[in-house]
This record gives sequence, structure tokens and C-alpha cells, in this order.
Amino acid sequence: MFEERKERALARLRAEEGKKGRVDEEVVEIIGRLNSLKDFFTTSSCSGRIVLLRVPEVGAKREAVFLGKWHRAVTKEEVLAVLKRSAVGTAEKGEVWLLSQSPILHVACRTLGKAKALLAVANESGFKYSGIKTISNSNDNGKVVVEIVSTERINVPLAEGGVLFCSDPHLDFIVSKANFTLARGKAKLKRFYSGLKMLE
Amino acid sequence: MFEERKERALARLRAEEGKKGRVDEEVVEIIGRLNSLKDFFTTSSCSGRIVLLRVPEVGAKREAVFLGKWHRAVTKEEVLAVLKRSAVGTAEKGEVWLLSQSPILHVACRTLGKAKALLAVANESGFKYSGIKTISNSNDNGKVVVEIVSTERINVPLAEGGVLFCSDPHLDFIVSKANFTLARGKAKLKRFYSGLKMLE
Repeated sequence: MFEERKERALARLRAEEGKKGRVDEEVVEIIGRLNSLKDFFTTSSCSGRIVLLRVPEVGAKREAVFLGKWHRAVTKEEVLAVLKRSAVGTAEKGEVWLLSQSPILHVACRTLGKAKALLAVANESGFKYSGIKTISNSNDNGKVVVEIVSTERINVPLAEGGVLFCSDPHLDFIVSKANFTLARGKAKLKRFYSGLKMLE
Repeated sequence: MFEERKERALARLRAEEGKKGRVDEEVVEIIGRLNSLKDFFTTSSCSGRIVLLRVPEVGAKREAVFLGKWHRAVTKEEVLAVLKRSAVGTAEKGEVWLLSQSPILHVACRTLGKAKALLAVANESGFKYSGIKTISNSNDNGKVVVEIVSTERINVPLAEGGVLFCSDPHLDFIVSKANFTLARGKAKLKRFYSGLKMLE
């Protein structure tokens, strides 16, 4: 049962990577390592990213449109170029937000004991919002899913109704903090990767 | 065992409330309700808040200093008053951030099954970062702890080294979004409270 589910997840992963390539290299080694362990497999992953998002309102994610998306540090000029092309001075309604998002991993675990061991590694690596998200009724069929995520992030409303509210020096400051937060997330991923040896 | 731990947690709660009063009223009914159920007790809670924080760097929470803290909507004038008193034009190093934080609850559950039931109520109420944080080796002694938390928040760097980078119109916009986010969190708490009848 666990093996079948894992095989399907790995096939899905290969298909996705074949289609679009892998944009966030930093997470490739980690998912490879996790998937090489017999008691785990990954169902989704992101190494952390900086995002420019247009949303009708806070939290209305389903209607959000990505204006820009980077799995690496950005410059203010890159952010401004996207804003000027698609958010500022347009008739588009809605808000534009800059987000620096934590790495996130979803990992299916064979047993509750394995999930606890993984959670310990995640917490020790600094992923303090990690937790067990779902447990199937039978604990031994691979439906124990751990979410690994960090608390640090940046969520700044920048513009509304085509008007950019953020000054140039403030955007400089925000972008530098977004890059710093992104780098912290990626450093945690490195610690997490090292910690995975505890699970062998 | 569970009963002893619960009794100690309730005594701690009464002592705290006796000492400082309860600042966030919106969570009082919820923790009262949870603590009235025989299979649960709360170990910490916050109904969500808007915070002005001075930090040496992103995520260095242990060294953070609260400049302002509100469990309710704020005005730009209130925020500016705190900034001018303690953050802008001073020789203080470090950064000043405005945060709008999700409600957060930690709930000890008698069994894993009860934790799963609580987690289902939390997720249905919109607390999408909820998860099981710790499970003791013996599942039946009240050490299954569920964290209930939402994804929405605002984290904006405003000032650094005594210099306010945020313009007045931008601060208006940020404060309105912080209030909106806070209100969304409190609406989720109401849904969660209604959902608690599923646990009886």
C-alpha cells in the first residue's frame, strides 16, 4: 500500500520535472534523499520563494495572480520592472503584495513513529511551524503526512488599484529583508538535509 | 495522568488571569469551552494581534522588544505615536516591524483520535497551518498537542536605525490591511467556536 502510493508519487514527480524542469534546485537533493529512504516520500515541495501577487483581498488565494516568482534573491529593479509592467498605472483592480515565503515540504510517512522522527529533524533545523497534518485511520498505510514549514516570512501590501504606495527607499529595504528571509529559509533546508541522516 | 496535567494547566491559567487580567477577550469563551470538554485542555492562546516589534534581525525573536501590542484594530495615528516615541529619530539600532499575527492556540488532547477530531474542526474553520506538534510515546497521557494557526499574516519592515522608511499613505494602507487580516482571524475563531460542538 505504502509502496504503491510512493511509486505513484515518484512517477508524478518525474512527469512534472520532465514537463517544466525543476525551478528550485535547492530542494532537489532533499527530495531525492527523502525519496531514497524506504519509510518516506515527498508529495510536494518548494525551496522558498519571493513572489509578487495580485489579490482581490487578503487570503483570497484562489483568485490570486502571480505577477512575478523567484526562487532566488531579487533586485529592486527586477521587482520594479514587474510592477511597472503589470501593476502600477493600470486600470487593474485589486492589491499587489510582495511575499517572501518559507520553504515548504509535504512528506508522507509509513508510520506515526517515522512521522515523529521526521518532525524532530524539522524542528531542530528551525522549521517551527511543522506538524502532522493528516493521519489516516489505519496508521500503517502511508497516510501520515508531515508539513515542514518555517515561521519567518514577509507579506507586504505594496499597491492598490494601480497605485504604488511603497516609496523607492522603502522598497529597497523590503527587498533586502525579503532576500535575507529567503536565505535564512535556504540555510534551514541545508541543516534539514544534514539532519536526514538521523532517519536512516 | 491527563487529569493531573489538565488540573495544573487550569491552575496556571487562573493564576495568570488573576495577575494581569485577560487582554484578549475574544479567546476567553473558546478556551473556556475547550477546557469544559473532558478530553482537551488549552496550554496557551492568543486571539490574534497587531504588534510593533524592534528586532536586531529577521527571526531573532529572543532579542525582540515589543514597542506596541494590540488585540484589536488600530489607527495609523496610534502606530505613528508609538513609532515616534520609541523607534524613529532615536539612536536605537535594529529594525522595526509591523506584524499582524494569526490567532494561535495550543491544545492538549487525551488521545490521537481526539487530536484528529480537533484538527478537522480547525481546518474547517480556516486554520490551515494547524497540525499535531508533539505526541508522547504513550498516546494516552495527554501529550498529544495540536497547534491551531492560520496562514494569513502581515510582516512589514518599517524602519531601521531610527529611520522610518514607510510613507504616510503607505502606512495607511498597511494598517488597513493589518486590521482586515486581524478581523479575518477573529472571524475564523468564531467559526472554530461553533465547530467545537462536534467534539462533545
